Amino acid sequence: MLYIIGLGLADEKDITLRGLEAVKKCEKVYVEAYTSLLSFGVSSDGLSTLEELYGRPVTLADREMVEEKADDILSEARGSDVAFLVVGDPFGATTHTDLVVRAKKFGIRVEVIHNASVMNAVGVCGLQLYRYGETVSIPFFTETWRPDSFYEKILRNRQLGLHTLCLLDIRVKEPSLESLCRGRKCYEPPKFMNIQTAIEQLLEVEQIHGESAYSEESTCVGFARLGSGDQRVVACSMRELMDVDFGAPLHCLVIVGKTHPVEEEMLEFYTIKAQTVEEEMGLHCSL
Amino acid sequence: MLYIIGLGLADEKDITLRGLEAVKKCEKVYVEAYTSLLSFGVSSDGLSTLEELYGRPVTLADREMVEEKADDILSEARGSDVAFLVVGDPFGATTHTDLVVRAKKFGIRVEVIHNASVMNAVGVCGLQLYRYGETVSIPFFTETWRPDSFYEKILRNRQLGLHTLCLLDIRVKEPSLESLCRGRKCYEPPKFMNIQTAIEQLLEVEQIHGESAYSEESTCVGFARLGSGDQRVVACSMRELMDVDFGAPLHCLVIVGKTHPVEEEMLEFYTIKAQTVEEEMGLHCSL
Repeated sequence: MLYIIGLGLADEKDITLRGLEAVKKCEKVYVEAYTSLLSFGVSSDGLSTLEELYGRPVTLADREMVEEKADDILSEARGSDVAFLVVGDPFGATTHTDLVVRAKKFGIRVEVIHNASVMNAVGVCGLQLYRYGETVSIPFFTETWRPDSFYEKILRNRQLGLHTLCLLDIRVKEPSLESLCRGRKCYEPPKFMNIQTAIEQLLEVEQIHGESAYSEESTCVGFARLGSGDQRVVACSMRELMDVDFGAPLHCLVIVGKTHPVEEEMLEFYTIKAQTVEEEMGLHCSL
Repeated sequence: MLYIIGLGLADEKDITLRGLEAVKKCEKVYVEAYTSLLSFGVSSDGLSTLEELYGRPVTLADREMVEEKADDILSEARGSDVAFLVVGDPFGATTHTDLVVRAKKFGIRVEVIHNASVMNAVGVCGLQLYRYGETVSIPFFTETWRPDSFYEKILRNRQLGLHTLCLLDIRVKEPSLESLCRGRKCYEPPKFMNIQTAIEQLLEVEQIHGESAYSEESTCVGFARLGSGDQRVVACSMRELMDVDFGAPLHCLVIVGKTHPVEEEMLEFYTIKAQTVEEEMGLHCSL
């Protein structure tokens, strides 16, 4: 049996009881390192927090390993219980359909254990999830590669009055250009797009297309470390967001569409002004 | 402190470790009964499964109670820790912004503990979450009330090639017409829309509008008891779905937009044909 288990958003305590029960009976435990395990206290050096909780060794699986050694993982799952742990939900922002498809083709039973994903946890800002249009990804621009297919999607969402979730680029274990040239594998340090970079790129693309999908004045919500004890959520204009210090990754951004009064009432708590008052009154809290 | 804690989708084991830790330190525990606690083994008679797990009494809170007694709940939260438990995610399909807004206005600290929601768990069928358009709700039609604002939204999603999640109506603790007339409170038995009723209503509305948003031949995915051990997921045409026995609630439905090859590969496992072969081969599994 192959268990694909969502770990949730922040740390080792976000696994569900069902998920933990499954991990504990598995002979082999992998944890995906495609995206980010930053807040899980996991690095390539040690997985000890998770290992302690699960009572068994955990193997870090990067994309390369999953692609190259999928058959090994799956043949283990044929004869015994194997857990594949995934940050967020197994079918959230980063999907793991490929592994499931391969498993099913081998006739291996698969059980999925769900958890929170950035795709639903952004609901905490008060914008209702059913009023979001298509989600977009903002990739890191390079000198020669500046793809902007997100622009048309945001424009469409805005015309329909819908909110847009922007997922910001994550680069983990990218081979360095130098290493590719030399034929040896060396990796760039991990890179996580922050809200400032995302907004700079968004405004650059708006200037090129000029269809007024959004502007510096458009209301947005910035999120950092969503779901963790020190998450930061701020609602204001793009321009104002540029000056907010969101701290460590991961970041994401919502471009606000047409709002209902109940949405506005919640957003109000996340404005810079409201947050300053709260801090002064000693009322600062997770929400 | 007011903790708003997602219970996840299926039963008491879907709470996260973080959620369970919070409930255990709360002096008062409420569980919302707005939507459905069917699979949690909870009825108005008893909440014993949850109470056993949490080691403390749990109060069932229906919409009426939360509306009428919110101030009582909140004044408890002012002096001590109170948990408000919510099926799915606190800001998923059913939002609880109202309670949060009131709490914040009273200066009460609020902590949200996320979990899986139907809004992200539908990802299990292989259709990618970022390729969904606006979510729609299908309400029960009555003889005199047949609202069809969902039609235009589905049409738009389909024109853009996006998938549409249809949330199906749930009627819990509706006052009966008779009781309203007599001035006494009596309630209709709970009602959960099934996939067949949803499709009948969808096709009726298509016939009225005639803009070919979808037809009997449109590919859909039907979900029953999503996230539970006996979930059922079937991908086929609307017409074929009418003959599938999905069993007990809750049901929901996805109208499929334009698909990518990787999405098609996953959907294939959920076709009626694939599922029959699996059952014959004894390979039936949660996915």
